[in-house]
Amino acid sequence: MTLHIGMLTFPNLTQLDLTGPFEILVRIPDAKVHLLWKTLEPVASDAGFVLQPTATLENAPPLDVVFVPGGAGQIPLMEDEAVLSFLQRTAARARYVTAVCTGSLLLGAAGLLEGYRATTHWAYHELLAKCGATPVRERVVVDRNRVTGGGVTSGIDFALRLAAELGGDELSRSIQLMVEYDPEPPYHSGTPVNAEARLVERARAQLEPFRAKREAILDARLRRA
Amino acid sequence: MTLHIGMLTFPNLTQLDLTGPFEILVRIPDAKVHLLWKTLEPVASDAGFVLQPTATLENAPPLDVVFVPGGAGQIPLMEDEAVLSFLQRTAARARYVTAVCTGSLLLGAAGLLEGYRATTHWAYHELLAKCGATPVRERVVVDRNRVTGGGVTSGIDFALRLAAELGGDELSRSIQLMVEYDPEPPYHSGTPVNAEARLVERARAQLEPFRAKREAILDARLRRA
Repeated sequence: MTLHIGMLTFPNLTQLDLTGPFEILVRIPDAKVHLLWKTLEPVASDAGFVLQPTATLENAPPLDVVFVPGGAGQIPLMEDEAVLSFLQRTAARARYVTAVCTGSLLLGAAGLLEGYRATTHWAYHELLAKCGATPVRERVVVDRNRVTGGGVTSGIDFALRLAAELGGDELSRSIQLMVEYDPEPPYHSGTPVNAEARLVERARAQLEPFRAKREAILDARLRRA
Repeated sequence: MTLHIGMLTFPNLTQLDLTGPFEILVRIPDAKVHLLWKTLEPVASDAGFVLQPTATLENAPPLDVVFVPGGAGQIPLMEDEAVLSFLQRTAARARYVTAVCTGSLLLGAAGLLEGYRATTHWAYHELLAKCGATPVRERVVVDRNRVTGGGVTSGIDFALRLAAELGGDELSRSIQLMVEYDPEPPYHSGTPVNAEARLVERARAQLEPFRAKREAILDARLRRA
């Protein structure tokens, strides 16, 4: 039986948030991965990388897994009723409801992380609490059928965990071997804990406008509720 | 001054070989990343992921960096005179000549790794010797201006090393922080050395037809030389 995995493919997403998990999940036997958006027009990432949706939100098949990547493009979607209601109705039937990076905040804006432990990109971590989630400082967080990952590259760790949930430990190990995933980062600079304080400060300053916008939208949502 | 980075974008490539490095390299200030192919028609990866070339081999700007990803699609290109001569004339002027995964064997078939230390996907490692290269069992190998990476996911480690070569250590650390690259593979199963022997055997058997085809093409090239 086909395992239908739907990945939200929106303008200004961060492409590696999606393409990392895609490469792992597409290797699950009988998986069919759908790139889902409002129309079938090509979509440009935040860095101008073009992605081609394969189905629309309207005509997507019933999904076993729904996945939301992050990137600046998720900011307006946190107030987009068509997208929020797509996520809500899909999540109600899916086996797994998942996200990486700031995709988690979109799941959160749809009310889908209330009462769940979850993670997101380090720069936006505390905003998870504004979605009713419990922010957890782990690279991948599995809580019942919610699976979330940290920033960008965590999508690979996330997807191997999800592959194990879906197809077992041995399948996930085999995929890891095929994609030679034995990482050797050149530096210890991947999180605010191990990076130089000066670089962390600079990154926080650069990301602050995005953080503030996300916070404002989630605060407005809380006031309405 | 713009830093022009050209990534070969051919049918049946392994998309994460390209999209991993893209996400890192596009964050280098003043970098412009070009996806290059014979035409501007969309190209499908080995898993059906659609990529959109942005320039042709003919009209690409002079490149500072040329990059070759891998995947089954590189097999016919090892005998494709148009692609081989594009790589040769580009490499002659580029600051860095680079590849990950079986992209290294395409550089090799173009004669561009002769006398260089290099790496490729673990399943094809010994074939580097047939290109006149010295196969090195490291995740990323830098030898003068040749930079090569192992299989698929090694592209991220590769690109951070290359970013440091191009823009310095601090830039690379900052990019690593932005993409939260602090990997936590769920298993020790990323190479034939740390994966279970049974899984390695199965993977080798699955990949053997591809290995044999690559070997036959490189052997024929050696006979002609």
